[in-house]
Amino acid sequence: MGASLALALRGKVKSLHGVDVNPQHLQDAAHCFDQLHQELNAESLGTDVIVLATPVRTIQVLLHRMSKYAQDGLIRPGTLILDLGSTKRDITAAMDDLPESLLAVGGHPMCGKETSGPQTADGAIYDRARFVLCATKRSTPETIEFCCQLAEAIGARPLLLDAKFHDASVAAISHVPYLISAGLVGMVMQAVDQDAGGDDVAWKLASTGFKDTSRLAASDVTMMADIVESNREAVFHALDLFGAQIEQLKLMLANSHDLQLRATLEQIRAARKEWEAKYFKK
Amino acid sequence: MGASLALALRGKVKSLHGVDVNPQHLQDAAHCFDQLHQELNAESLGTDVIVLATPVRTIQVLLHRMSKYAQDGLIRPGTLILDLGSTKRDITAAMDDLPESLLAVGGHPMCGKETSGPQTADGAIYDRARFVLCATKRSTPETIEFCCQLAEAIGARPLLLDAKFHDASVAAISHVPYLISAGLVGMVMQAVDQDAGGDDVAWKLASTGFKDTSRLAASDVTMMADIVESNREAVFHALDLFGAQIEQLKLMLANSHDLQLRATLEQIRAARKEWEAKYFKK
Repeated sequence: MGASLALALRGKVKSLHGVDVNPQHLQDAAHCFDQLHQELNAESLGTDVIVLATPVRTIQVLLHRMSKYAQDGLIRPGTLILDLGSTKRDITAAMDDLPESLLAVGGHPMCGKETSGPQTADGAIYDRARFVLCATKRSTPETIEFCCQLAEAIGARPLLLDAKFHDASVAAISHVPYLISAGLVGMVMQAVDQDAGGDDVAWKLASTGFKDTSRLAASDVTMMADIVESNREAVFHALDLFGAQIEQLKLMLANSHDLQLRATLEQIRAARKEWEAKYFKK
Repeated sequence: MGASLALALRGKVKSLHGVDVNPQHLQDAAHCFDQLHQELNAESLGTDVIVLATPVRTIQVLLHRMSKYAQDGLIRPGTLILDLGSTKRDITAAMDDLPESLLAVGGHPMCGKETSGPQTADGAIYDRARFVLCATKRSTPETIEFCCQLAEAIGARPLLLDAKFHDASVAAISHVPYLISAGLVGMVMQAVDQDAGGDDVAWKLASTGFKDTSRLAASDVTMMADIVESNREAVFHALDLFGAQIEQLKLMLANSHDLQLRATLEQIRAARKEWEAKYFKK
């Protein structure tokens, strides 16, 4: 996400610095940045804006360090810190605790890919994507406005949201879909294991419907586990709502309430179609 | 499915007859068949092979009528009846009860589309698709062999399966994915309704991950409800296995068993990737 952002910002900012502890990543990202650094020091931190583009937990660790770097004078007063993490409550809470000399805004561009790492960097992923921004105690109207302009400069659509509200929404439309997808694959694995024939029949019969419903199960586990672990509470709430929906469908099926089942499925179908027509970025 | 089969069989059989009670369907299917009929009578039933391509419940009704037609002499002895229904236990049981003068094989070509009706007929959908065949008390080795040849003639890959085993497998890889997908959309509908803001945020943030996981929820309800209702027992079993998988993931998440959670998700990811590489028809 960081290298992709650098590519999207090329020619629109004075200078782009890339920092990564992994030399291979630095090499892969060489075409994305003007300067590369392997360490956080006065040079690599001496920018107007610091963008944290790591997994959520690492962002929290880095924010903690930023306080120290600011105290040590490695970060200039007035520097803006923006992150690209997938959950926002814990991160904005950590941003609230930054020294008053710093500015900070929570960010989440909604344009994940199954791949990660700078070798697959692509500036176009931000095109028309929602870019969620969450204000913190270290935000000013000007910093929010600046972040909106940054999002628009890379073709994204900024959306100002409360962090808690953001986390509840992404639990429902992203984290739970991932867990459902994983649970589905786990279920078929078990069903295949139980086959008397041992002939992998379920795998052989699975087609495009299964492919789409199970696609998220192939996501990068380090990234996704980090995300769901940092959003436990909201994920549990959404999973409970999901479980209730499945129970409701099951009950109608068990009691042969066929008309009620069909009416419910028609409502769901209409909502899904309306979502794709009205909200989905083509 | 019936009109698509006719298109795929064009030039490979002597004559193709299409029967539908709906005059509009007949008109839409005119390019697929040599002759069109609006009724089941001596003329439309006087073929070597009768293919039943309707929803599962209608197939059961039609099979019941076939017995009467055979007794009335409208169907010749030795006529082969093949169906294209999505579940096979109830249908093969009904085929077992056909008069001994008839031949019957249960069929399920695994190439569903979200659309239905002859106006979207497409002979290419059978290309490389699995075509499940289930023997009945009215099958002979020759009829099975004939059905395999028919499947191969349209480019499909025949797979001989026990009906009960077929139904358990499709519950896991098709019917439960549909219900999961519907439950997911129902959950987001509820989450959006609960939003204090009333700003449809969850719908706005939903992106490609949600799109794929929820795609099946937009399937034709009449078709899918008919399918799950005709496969209740196997669907409940697969839903129970799925529920247990979700509970297991939830427990690991609740108890912060992060390493165990990641190891489980990695196994699932590997299985999903192996399935796509090894079994999925590209």
